[in-house]
Amino acid sequence: MVTSSWAAAHAQTPVPRRRGAVLERAILDAALEQLSTVGWSGLTMEGVAAGAQTGKAAVYRRWPSKEDLVADALRSGLPEFGSAPDLGSVRDDLLHLCLQARDGMFSRSGLALRSVIHECDTLQAERFHAVIFEGVVEPTLKMLREVIERGIERGEVRPDAANSYVFDAIPAMMMYRSKMCGSEWTDVDLTEMIDQLMVPLLRRSGP
Amino acid sequence: MVTSSWAAAHAQTPVPRRRGAVLERAILDAALEQLSTVGWSGLTMEGVAAGAQTGKAAVYRRWPSKEDLVADALRSGLPEFGSAPDLGSVRDDLLHLCLQARDGMFSRSGLALRSVIHECDTLQAERFHAVIFEGVVEPTLKMLREVIERGIERGEVRPDAANSYVFDAIPAMMMYRSKMCGSEWTDVDLTEMIDQLMVPLLRRSGP
Repeated sequence: MVTSSWAAAHAQTPVPRRRGAVLERAILDAALEQLSTVGWSGLTMEGVAAGAQTGKAAVYRRWPSKEDLVADALRSGLPEFGSAPDLGSVRDDLLHLCLQARDGMFSRSGLALRSVIHECDTLQAERFHAVIFEGVVEPTLKMLREVIERGIERGEVRPDAANSYVFDAIPAMMMYRSKMCGSEWTDVDLTEMIDQLMVPLLRRSGP
Repeated sequence: MVTSSWAAAHAQTPVPRRRGAVLERAILDAALEQLSTVGWSGLTMEGVAAGAQTGKAAVYRRWPSKEDLVADALRSGLPEFGSAPDLGSVRDDLLHLCLQARDGMFSRSGLALRSVIHECDTLQAERFHAVIFEGVVEPTLKMLREVIERGIERGEVRPDAANSYVFDAIPAMMMYRSKMCGSEWTDVDLTEMIDQLMVPLLRRSGP
C-alpha cells in the first residue's frame, strides 16, 4: 500500500492505486469512452473497469448499475453553455451556435449522449431524460430563443417566429441527417442549412 | 398430415399445418409484431416462431439470420405510395401528406421500421438502408418535392424553396419530436407545424 506520491510513482505496479475523485474521474471517462465507441449496448461494467485500469469491484462499489454509471458519466461530460453569441446578425449568430453544436455532437461526450438517445428504449430513456433535457436540450433552446428574439427586436426577424417549431428546426435537422445519412455536418453543410432553411424561415416578408 | 381444408379445420391440432405463402405471411407478420412491440433488440427467432404458431425450424429454413428475416418483414410491410395530393393549396397538400405520414409512422409497420432505424448500429443499419430509403424515405421526398414544385409553378411558393433542407424539414421534425418528446403528432400538432414552420418557410416574400 503506497503512502506517498513518490512511492506511488515508483511502485512495482504500473498504475498506482488511486482513490476518491481521481479514480472516479477515470471510471467516468472510461464510461464515456465506451459509450462513444461501442455505445450503450456495447458498454459493460467489466469493459469500463478495464478502461479505467481498475477492478469491477471499484466500479460497482460506487455505481450499483449500468444505468447509474451512465447517468453520472453523461452528466460529467456535459459542456459549459455560455451566453448566446452576438455577432451582429441573426444569420451569423445562428451559424456560430450551429458550429458549436456540431463540435459538441462529435465530441466524445456528444457521441456518448447520442448513443444513449438512439439506443435506449423508452423505459431506460426515462432514467436519462433529465440529463439529456436539462443538460443539453434546454440550454441549447435557450440560446436559440435569445438569438431569435434579439433578431425580432432588431427588426431582422418576423415577430411570429418565436415558436417551438422554429426553435426545434435546427436540432431536428442536425439529428435527422446525422442519423439517417451519417452526415458529419461540415461547415459548408451548416452554412447551407442556415441560408436555405433558417434565413428564409425567419426573415420578415415585405419591406 | 391434413389433406383437405375441411380436415384441416377440424383436425385435432389447433393450427393446421400451413405451407408456402400462408406460413411465410404469418412469420413475416409475427416479425413485424415483435419489432413494433419489443423492437429490434427484443426480437428473437423463437419469439417470431411462437407468434406465427410454428416451429423455429420453419423460420430458420427460410431466413438463416435475424437480419434476413427483419429485412423481408420490413419490405413486406411497406405502404403503397400513391401520387401526391392536389387539394388546391400547398398548405392543404402538405397537411394531407403529413396526416398520411403520421398514420404510417404509428402503424405496425411504421413502428417496426422506426425500431430498426433507432436501435440498429451503423453496421447493422447498412443491411436495412435500402429498404428504409427506397421503401419510405425516397417515395416520401418525391411527393414533398411534387407538392412544393407545383406550389412554385402556381406562384404560391418562392422559387428557391426547392432544396434538400426544405424537403427534409418535415421528416426531420416528425422524427425529432417523436423520438425526443414521445410526440404522437396529433392532427393539431401537424396543423401547427404546417402553419408555423412550413408556410412561412415556403411563401413568397413581398407581393
